[in-house]
Amino acid sequence: MSDKAPWITFRPELKVLDCTVRDGGLVNAHQFSDEFVAAVYHACVDAGIDYMEIGYKNSPKTFPKEKFGPWRHCDESDLRRVVGDHDPEKTGLKLAAMADAGKSDWETQIVPAAESPLSMIRVAFYAHQVSEAVDMIRHAHELGYETTANLMAVSNITEEEIDTVLDAIAPTPATTMVIVDSFGYLYREQIDRLYRKYAGALEGTGKEIGIHAHNNLQLAFANTIEAIILGCNRVDATLFGFGRGAGNCHTELLLGFLRNPKFEMRPVIDVIQNYIMPLRKDLDWGPSIPYNITGQLNQHPRSAIEWREGATPDDFLGFYDKVVAEI
Amino acid sequence: MSDKAPWITFRPELKVLDCTVRDGGLVNAHQFSDEFVAAVYHACVDAGIDYMEIGYKNSPKTFPKEKFGPWRHCDESDLRRVVGDHDPEKTGLKLAAMADAGKSDWETQIVPAAESPLSMIRVAFYAHQVSEAVDMIRHAHELGYETTANLMAVSNITEEEIDTVLDAIAPTPATTMVIVDSFGYLYREQIDRLYRKYAGALEGTGKEIGIHAHNNLQLAFANTIEAIILGCNRVDATLFGFGRGAGNCHTELLLGFLRNPKFEMRPVIDVIQNYIMPLRKDLDWGPSIPYNITGQLNQHPRSAIEWREGATPDDFLGFYDKVVAEI
Repeated sequence: MSDKAPWITFRPELKVLDCTVRDGGLVNAHQFSDEFVAAVYHACVDAGIDYMEIGYKNSPKTFPKEKFGPWRHCDESDLRRVVGDHDPEKTGLKLAAMADAGKSDWETQIVPAAESPLSMIRVAFYAHQVSEAVDMIRHAHELGYETTANLMAVSNITEEEIDTVLDAIAPTPATTMVIVDSFGYLYREQIDRLYRKYAGALEGTGKEIGIHAHNNLQLAFANTIEAIILGCNRVDATLFGFGRGAGNCHTELLLGFLRNPKFEMRPVIDVIQNYIMPLRKDLDWGPSIPYNITGQLNQHPRSAIEWREGATPDDFLGFYDKVVAEI
Repeated sequence: MSDKAPWITFRPELKVLDCTVRDGGLVNAHQFSDEFVAAVYHACVDAGIDYMEIGYKNSPKTFPKEKFGPWRHCDESDLRRVVGDHDPEKTGLKLAAMADAGKSDWETQIVPAAESPLSMIRVAFYAHQVSEAVDMIRHAHELGYETTANLMAVSNITEEEIDTVLDAIAPTPATTMVIVDSFGYLYREQIDRLYRKYAGALEGTGKEIGIHAHNNLQLAFANTIEAIILGCNRVDATLFGFGRGAGNCHTELLLGFLRNPKFEMRPVIDVIQNYIMPLRKDLDWGPSIPYNITGQLNQHPRSAIEWREGATPDDFLGFYDKVVAEI
């Protein structure tokens, strides 16, 4: 591992993606004000972050505009209203959007990259959707975007399914394959195993490995560090961990760990204090016992989210008894 | 490492110590009701936890009884009032108290083990206090206690100081030497390095290595797992992470990770819901940005604690600017 810098220095090729608006929008149906999204955008620019994922390119048929805010669909006009003539060169920031297999009108929804402020399309998919994902990656690549392959819920599928997905993604133009711990279930030894599997299958393709961790077991940051130590060069995080359920690896913790002097902490703390913390009056996220429980059981967090939104959010014992009775 | 069980099974020799009352008492000057301490005690028994640290054997001269509750001194009469004729054999739980070098009247304060419900004295000390610590360990051992050596603030001293301490502790009767990350500063690679240093210096003494982690960087649980993977068999945790500043490794997360079927989760969630969560109305602990900042800077959390207790606890940016100006 002679190409790995020790932790006291840094790897310039390591890129941080802040997905606060995209993942956090799963908590509030992407009903953010333009001011909020602009504040996150400017914080990312000022902090030296490499990529900002500003939302989903998902279908307004699946996610009607009466119910879901603009960042679920990322119409070009909505993007332009907030980021104007965004220039990746001048700002050092590339904008990304995620498209979900099965939930995106990607054939028509994605305009040529030259006409969009977006530089990257991240394709999210479950294992059984890998064929559509490959088509999506090729299509977005042809339109001029950098693309990534984000296989979700990897803790819940077989080794054979993972191998099949990796074989299918290897020849695509995706620059990155992301390890996605959707259920916040993975311990460090499993991160190690997955990293080696991904890296082995993608050897020689020039693809980078990414990491997207959830915080059900308070391991999102730790697992992200572990992936970085192993060689991951594409790293997801969100401001104060804002994201569905237990939330994500915290951007401010990650930047504190990375030693690249281009990163600035102050704009990150500023936007957290003035834009993220106020959301906590109305929205719930971050590790709590219901999310611990679903994480430990390798379950989707939806039952914990429902409990936290229900009549007795702090009746942890009631949730525990319910879950134990159901397994 | 043929003696290490894979994570899916368990190591019977791994022992869990819950230090909720001892470490949490640093948040409220150990002003707990008897009912609270009894509830934690019964939860530890019911959960199959191996050791419960019920407080400090520290001096009432240093910590006057008008200001500090009984669990700062652990007078035998206070212990008996709550745990009665505690029987380690019948309950499976051993009781421990911590004595701080420089703050304990250990020559007079510790009664013979046969007369006390306590089974273990943990000796906490800074590097410069190691000579007193050795005397304390020998004294408590002669009185019939199991003893441990807890070198605090290990992230803030030189390699040579650590080596000197390990050389001094090696010939003592302490059964365990604990890696104590007082400032919540250590990353996994540093845990690895310290574990190997401790294990190397203590090889052949029969001593176990312990881990006591703080959660400033949301790494307490992760670092505890790392220490376990390496071979630590003595592990500290607190209920819902209750402890000074950013708090500790959460007992409920730890038990969820360990696969020993003797551990029961339900009593842990029960006591958290009914006794720990209500404390949050008045007391502040757990990771937040001020603790992130002191952790990243390898500073004692006291400035962050003061900030959180001050007039503008959520002015993270103000704290950041203050700290940056001072370094």
